[in-house]
Amino acid sequence: MKGRLTGLGIDTGGSFTKLIAIAESGAVLGKAQIPTLSEKGPRDFIRRAAQAVRALERRLGRSLGDVCLAVAGDVDPRRGRLRRSPNLPRFEDFPLRDTLRVALDRQVEMHNDANMAAWGCYTLELRRRFPNVLGITMGTGIGGGVVQGGKLYTGSTGSAGEFGHMRVVPGGERCGCGASGCLEAYAGKAGIAKLAARLLEESPAASPRLRAAAKGGDGLDPEVLARAAQAGDPVAREVWRRVGAAMGVGIVNLVYLFNPDAVVIAGGVSQAGAFFMDPIRRALAEESFRTPFTHVRVTLAKRAQLGSLGAAMYALEGAD
Amino acid sequence: MKGRLTGLGIDTGGSFTKLIAIAESGAVLGKAQIPTLSEKGPRDFIRRAAQAVRALERRLGRSLGDVCLAVAGDVDPRRGRLRRSPNLPRFEDFPLRDTLRVALDRQVEMHNDANMAAWGCYTLELRRRFPNVLGITMGTGIGGGVVQGGKLYTGSTGSAGEFGHMRVVPGGERCGCGASGCLEAYAGKAGIAKLAARLLEESPAASPRLRAAAKGGDGLDPEVLARAAQAGDPVAREVWRRVGAAMGVGIVNLVYLFNPDAVVIAGGVSQAGAFFMDPIRRALAEESFRTPFTHVRVTLAKRAQLGSLGAAMYALEGAD
Repeated sequence: MKGRLTGLGIDTGGSFTKLIAIAESGAVLGKAQIPTLSEKGPRDFIRRAAQAVRALERRLGRSLGDVCLAVAGDVDPRRGRLRRSPNLPRFEDFPLRDTLRVALDRQVEMHNDANMAAWGCYTLELRRRFPNVLGITMGTGIGGGVVQGGKLYTGSTGSAGEFGHMRVVPGGERCGCGASGCLEAYAGKAGIAKLAARLLEESPAASPRLRAAAKGGDGLDPEVLARAAQAGDPVAREVWRRVGAAMGVGIVNLVYLFNPDAVVIAGGVSQAGAFFMDPIRRALAEESFRTPFTHVRVTLAKRAQLGSLGAAMYALEGAD
Repeated sequence: MKGRLTGLGIDTGGSFTKLIAIAESGAVLGKAQIPTLSEKGPRDFIRRAAQAVRALERRLGRSLGDVCLAVAGDVDPRRGRLRRSPNLPRFEDFPLRDTLRVALDRQVEMHNDANMAAWGCYTLELRRRFPNVLGITMGTGIGGGVVQGGKLYTGSTGSAGEFGHMRVVPGGERCGCGASGCLEAYAGKAGIAKLAARLLEESPAASPRLRAAAKGGDGLDPEVLARAAQAGDPVAREVWRRVGAAMGVGIVNLVYLFNPDAVVIAGGVSQAGAFFMDPIRRALAEESFRTPFTHVRVTLAKRAQLGSLGAAMYALEGAD
């Protein structure tokens, strides 16, 4: 893969598929977006994705090199298929990678989107300064990926780094996966909204503006709660404090298990970082086994779209 | 390291130091033991350890090749020193590895004892059939080690695989490390004894024989509790069921994070395996994200002394 000058990342979500072309320097050369329309099936999707790649190449006046497809769900990176994906059920068990390879006549890899976001954290956010990096994506779900010795570690079946289903409160809040007490149930979008609603209910006089926003149809989503925290709202701040406490338990575990150089938190909620990073840092500071905890840096990613950016970097240089 | 035929593992514990010489086949060539006598300081220890190596070589009539020193505590494998070790405070920050290198005039490595036990799980228990293996040591403490792609992964500061301090019940039982809810507080020797004592207190009529054994000075240690469970004692069986439940939470987390081929449980308590493996297997069976859980095998190690055995195997062939 050495010597190639560009890579193309394709991040396939339930609604939209985002294409990003990137240079070796990390500079973004161009972007495109198509609706995923998964209900039309995988063949139709691959045909339109290949068209979008060629259209982007025409627009930029150059070939965009190899491709990495990032998809949410249980990806089999060896076979280039989705085993299971709640958002893309019609794509399951279809040879997405190999069909796109044939359509584009070039090297195509396929990985879990959070693994690609972690690769973006390693290559772009940290510019490869440290070999052992964990990326955590906070969004609808909590995902993650593991970089060790400068290589992506995907585990035996491509499932490593499922940080969101680590139990932080066994027997606690119900998670979408059916289990109880997963980190995602406390720090994923739905869990955060549920907590905010409960706190609003518990103190009926507090936070009239947050309550109004929630009723106004904005919902208690992370953006609304981030803005409210910024404006000093006590309920919103308490929400983020508790999100930080749950993330703190999770990251303490990750440090004991992986002993990384750095943990990077990516995803939509990073705007609220100022309000949840303090409890995370406090949790790390409390551990008596100091060596791995004084070593590790925990930071917020500055970039959005690290899934497609990381996939583009992986296409460029990550593959063996 | 290729082509060497023997390796020597030296497992340095608080009271005793065990030497094991091993052939490439995994066959044990010879053993020796010396008191650690850490109060006499590290120089004296290294002198006596080197003497013991030479005595074993004379006894076996051959050179025993390179050496790996396995030590409990916060080992810096790059510098070959103990940063911190509650059992061996006088050895802290002394160049144990390099002093032994000079004394024996051969290659010496130094690693955390649980990491070496994990290497033993990978090389001896599983005979390298799977590349991604986690070893968990259940003893006074709960330790662990990570093998990925057939290599030992020790993390950025040599601290990876500290499975015992993963939180399984945040805010739960106090752990020796000062934190609450660590796996070790539920499945380590002291935690098991505490739980057994509490259960005996709660049902004063139950388990007269176990109670007698506890009073007779045997204490509620894992061996006594394993024998009692074997004999059908209901309190002992409940103890192991709860130990298995805590281990189950921990292993579920490990599978989500590392996605290993195999998890091997080693250490003194494996005699009670029949009573704690079922709850572990049940915990794994309950997860809805099936791929990593149907893939992984969880087994009990058959060998004792995997710390020194693993160190011997590592000396033989594990180093780069």
